[in-house]
Amino acid sequence: MYRSHSCGELRASDINKEVTISGWVQKSRDKGFMIWVDLRDRYGITQLIFDEQRTPKDVVEKAKTLGREFVIKVTGTVIERESKNKNIPTGEIEILVKELSILNEALVPPFTIEDETDGGEDIRMKYRYLDIRRNPVKNSLMFRHQVAMKVRNYLSEEGFIEVETPYLIKSTPEGARDFVVPSRMNEGQFYALPQSPQTFKQLLMVGGMDKYFQIVKCFRDEDLRADRQPEFTQIDCEMAFVEQEDILHIFEGLTHHLIKDIKGVEINEFPRMTYDEAVRTYGNDKPDIRFGMKFGELNEVAQHKDFKVFNDAELVVGIAVPGGASYTRKEIDKLIDWVKRPQVGALGMVYVKCNDDGTYKSSVDKFYDQEDLAKWAKSTGAKAGDLICILSGQTNKVRSQLSALRMELAERLGLRNPEEFAPLWVVDFPLLEWDEETERYHAMHHPFTSPKPEDIPLLDTKPGDVRANAYDLVLNGNEIGGGSIRIHDKETQALMFDHLGFTPEEAKAQFGFLMDAFQYGAPPHGGIAFGFDRLVAILGGQETIRDFIAFPKNNSGRDVMIDAPANIDEEQLKELNIKLDL
Amino acid sequence: MYRSHSCGELRASDINKEVTISGWVQKSRDKGFMIWVDLRDRYGITQLIFDEQRTPKDVVEKAKTLGREFVIKVTGTVIERESKNKNIPTGEIEILVKELSILNEALVPPFTIEDETDGGEDIRMKYRYLDIRRNPVKNSLMFRHQVAMKVRNYLSEEGFIEVETPYLIKSTPEGARDFVVPSRMNEGQFYALPQSPQTFKQLLMVGGMDKYFQIVKCFRDEDLRADRQPEFTQIDCEMAFVEQEDILHIFEGLTHHLIKDIKGVEINEFPRMTYDEAVRTYGNDKPDIRFGMKFGELNEVAQHKDFKVFNDAELVVGIAVPGGASYTRKEIDKLIDWVKRPQVGALGMVYVKCNDDGTYKSSVDKFYDQEDLAKWAKSTGAKAGDLICILSGQTNKVRSQLSALRMELAERLGLRNPEEFAPLWVVDFPLLEWDEETERYHAMHHPFTSPKPEDIPLLDTKPGDVRANAYDLVLNGNEIGGGSIRIHDKETQALMFDHLGFTPEEAKAQFGFLMDAFQYGAPPHGGIAFGFDRLVAILGGQETIRDFIAFPKNNSGRDVMIDAPANIDEEQLKELNIKLDL
Repeated sequence: MYRSHSCGELRASDINKEVTISGWVQKSRDKGFMIWVDLRDRYGITQLIFDEQRTPKDVVEKAKTLGREFVIKVTGTVIERESKNKNIPTGEIEILVKELSILNEALVPPFTIEDETDGGEDIRMKYRYLDIRRNPVKNSLMFRHQVAMKVRNYLSEEGFIEVETPYLIKSTPEGARDFVVPSRMNEGQFYALPQSPQTFKQLLMVGGMDKYFQIVKCFRDEDLRADRQPEFTQIDCEMAFVEQEDILHIFEGLTHHLIKDIKGVEINEFPRMTYDEAVRTYGNDKPDIRFGMKFGELNEVAQHKDFKVFNDAELVVGIAVPGGASYTRKEIDKLIDWVKRPQVGALGMVYVKCNDDGTYKSSVDKFYDQEDLAKWAKSTGAKAGDLICILSGQTNKVRSQLSALRMELAERLGLRNPEEFAPLWVVDFPLLEWDEETERYHAMHHPFTSPKPEDIPLLDTKPGDVRANAYDLVLNGNEIGGGSIRIHDKETQALMFDHLGFTPEEAKAQFGFLMDAFQYGAPPHGGIAFGFDRLVAILGGQETIRDFIAFPKNNSGRDVMIDAPANIDEEQLKELNIKLDL
Repeated sequence: MYRSHSCGELRASDINKEVTISGWVQKSRDKGFMIWVDLRDRYGITQLIFDEQRTPKDVVEKAKTLGREFVIKVTGTVIERESKNKNIPTGEIEILVKELSILNEALVPPFTIEDETDGGEDIRMKYRYLDIRRNPVKNSLMFRHQVAMKVRNYLSEEGFIEVETPYLIKSTPEGARDFVVPSRMNEGQFYALPQSPQTFKQLLMVGGMDKYFQIVKCFRDEDLRADRQPEFTQIDCEMAFVEQEDILHIFEGLTHHLIKDIKGVEINEFPRMTYDEAVRTYGNDKPDIRFGMKFGELNEVAQHKDFKVFNDAELVVGIAVPGGASYTRKEIDKLIDWVKRPQVGALGMVYVKCNDDGTYKSSVDKFYDQEDLAKWAKSTGAKAGDLICILSGQTNKVRSQLSALRMELAERLGLRNPEEFAPLWVVDFPLLEWDEETERYHAMHHPFTSPKPEDIPLLDTKPGDVRANAYDLVLNGNEIGGGSIRIHDKETQALMFDHLGFTPEEAKAQFGFLMDAFQYGAPPHGGIAFGFDRLVAILGGQETIRDFIAFPKNNSGRDVMIDAPANIDEEQLKELNIKLDL
């Protein structure tokens, strides 16, 4: 037997008990006649004492050899601690050791196993199994488990059935790139790993499963932007006989439940905003509404003078930074440098200080008078003491630049409180988006999203204006879920494939089974998928997902710990009927 | 709104309510002046009535066009049914329809959507989304969900943390064949899909996670025997600071809980048997102990006469078939034919009838006298009225042949009651097994299984005799779980790799990360993995797993519904730096 108790369990009420515990040596202090060891396991830390007076001599000698991260088992008596440690639950006791076994020795770890470690990202990833011993990582993984359990129990209570869909499926060129898997038994053919269980969950609806969910790994072979993983986890859901309203209702319930249960925060409102409004007011489709700084569009009040920069711009738009009028010239210059960084890409920034006395001082006083500037203040909602920051240029670009600035300023002003939760439904997404590269329309969500019936006539005339029955759930500026009401009839699906540039033959080859299924009585249905990694991170009060994933990959898609991907045998390639083509 | 109630919900207490329900037309009976429709959804069936007297004329007309599996929505009033149907929960009421919308039409399904369908396996798989509408499949999938929830909640309560391990890992030639995934970003390199999360769960133990579990997909690219799938689901578990006894204890608890909770059956005993005893007594390592017919070895009492067949045999072994003395000559001949089928492979069978008067009549009376036969009866436990069936030959072969006969006879005699549950731990598995093909020893479980310390000296002299700290949980003749105490020190692991024929370089290339991890303080640990598909099927009272998997593959590893695997674009191959080599 390795232990009668864990390292987080013993209390004053256990004093005088004889116990056995096992764990890792967190640290040891050798005072010559007395040695203290902090013994750690998943559950906590317990102090051991080896005392020349009371511990057998050979045990004391052995204790002197213990290094950091040695794995040991000790037996001894729980005694009261002389100097109590109020910071840990076991702080009132220590164990006077009688027996000590070294279960395994340990090399000195390449970084300290402490909450604040001296190890950089790369070394921590290479030795991830040591990194996991640290509380911040260990607790994040345990937190992830708790969230998953809560999600499963909630949805199961609501009548959802978790169905496992297959991982070895079929490649479709639509959407992101697939990971593929050569089939040995079917020569020259390949499986693909799912980017999502989209078609399968729709088939489950055709199959009458009514309410489906799955917490499931998905795969995308994309060039990895920061904080993206080639394999990621989704809470995937689908319901039959529902309209958009039913879905929003159910998943508001889930989100409300999670935030209340985990954070103790009651959310009473899930406001809604159209995609158009989100983009116009916040410059993007996942606005953080924990704070204001809404966009004020200034074309009407800024393009009537001789300022060519504004006059040439498709859009002139500004935000009011609370209290920003007190920024020094140097601070403002830094802000201008910030928006001009290549990651943001603005060409410059115009600003207006709203003085306390009601006057304005701007960087374009040469062109605009106080009356003009007062109008700008009105449009951006700026008050005395604020700073108006104005960008101009091509509409989409300038919106995303100003959105980046807004987020940056909110961060600096401490307006992005991780303990505050502001969910938002963004609705009425466009059905299609223009792809510059291929010069054709792509499905903004995926080709199964239903257009709003009243917009279908626009498909032929203004495809970009057609709105979809699609919605995203945004939480604190992060898209945590997205979904749509699906097409459930063969005709609309065929129309959609046609507008996406599929020939009927291509559509049949790739999605024939789905179109076939639609002929045998498909119910109206729709669903949503949550990015589970992101959701957990946000609920955990963080914005990066990596510490919530046990064994993440780096930006080249490598697992540096196991050193994968790797070369494989010629033999293996031969069996799979492929060869390298480098 | 598509429904105020489901099709399984309305009762006599709802009479006079106005309701809206949606679903599929199960069947309709048109009596001219009156039409009855059975409307089905996941939750049940509700009878609709369209009545010329009380239903608007156009609605009656539309109702006449309804075909099987049409998807409709109706609004009407709940009324009392004239002829009640006691067989269904909604049988006391029907809905007098006022409004009818056809949500989707349906082609006539290629097989009947009934509990007993006219569709064969192939067509059911091609149209799996229709097959899932049938109760036996739908209920199996819902049952699977319930079992998964119970497993997760039980293990979570016991302090296990579900950790998601990666799917894109590294190929290892040990064990079964891997599915591999070419990496686009790492030219010429491949990921592999996990055959199990074995090394990751061990690394989680090194990482101090203490108790881990995961319900997880695993992948093996094997030639598929009947009822095997290339992707399958495991309940994967690992614990630190445990001995074999701790693991058996915890998972007896889980199994006990599941069988009690799901079947209402209380299991008080989990007997144990060594691998040697199982093989000697039942001819295989996963004996069904719901019934007797234990093997009686007869070499001593059958090799002293002139019967060459027995004298030349390595093993002569028999079983007593209860009541078999009454079999006719013809029935016995059929049994002999059965054991001679190539799937079983025996060359013949000797039998002894144990007559009610205490005499014996055998097929080898020419060679053996009554005294001999009495000894055989004693060794096999045969009583008056039984039939002793005896096979002989090479030990391993004859054991597996007699085991097959034993199972077949038990099936015919109705001894394999699916509502009875007889778990059994098989322990002390051999560490290594000889592989005829490669002429070397392989790890019987996997190369991380620890040998029993007292057997380590045998590694050099009699490797085949070394026993492992390995155990299987057998339920009703099926292996449902298997695991071991792992090696946790670098030296033993190196020794093991050496005996498995790995050079130190090969071991380092493939498992270097694990051996490295073992240097940084690995705790003693062990675990178990359950075949979830099989476990669910057995708990569901069935022996084939296919109906418990939503979208199974056929024996060629094909998904015939989506037609995968399939060819992929030249473009895709090029990006992945591979080409076909057919």
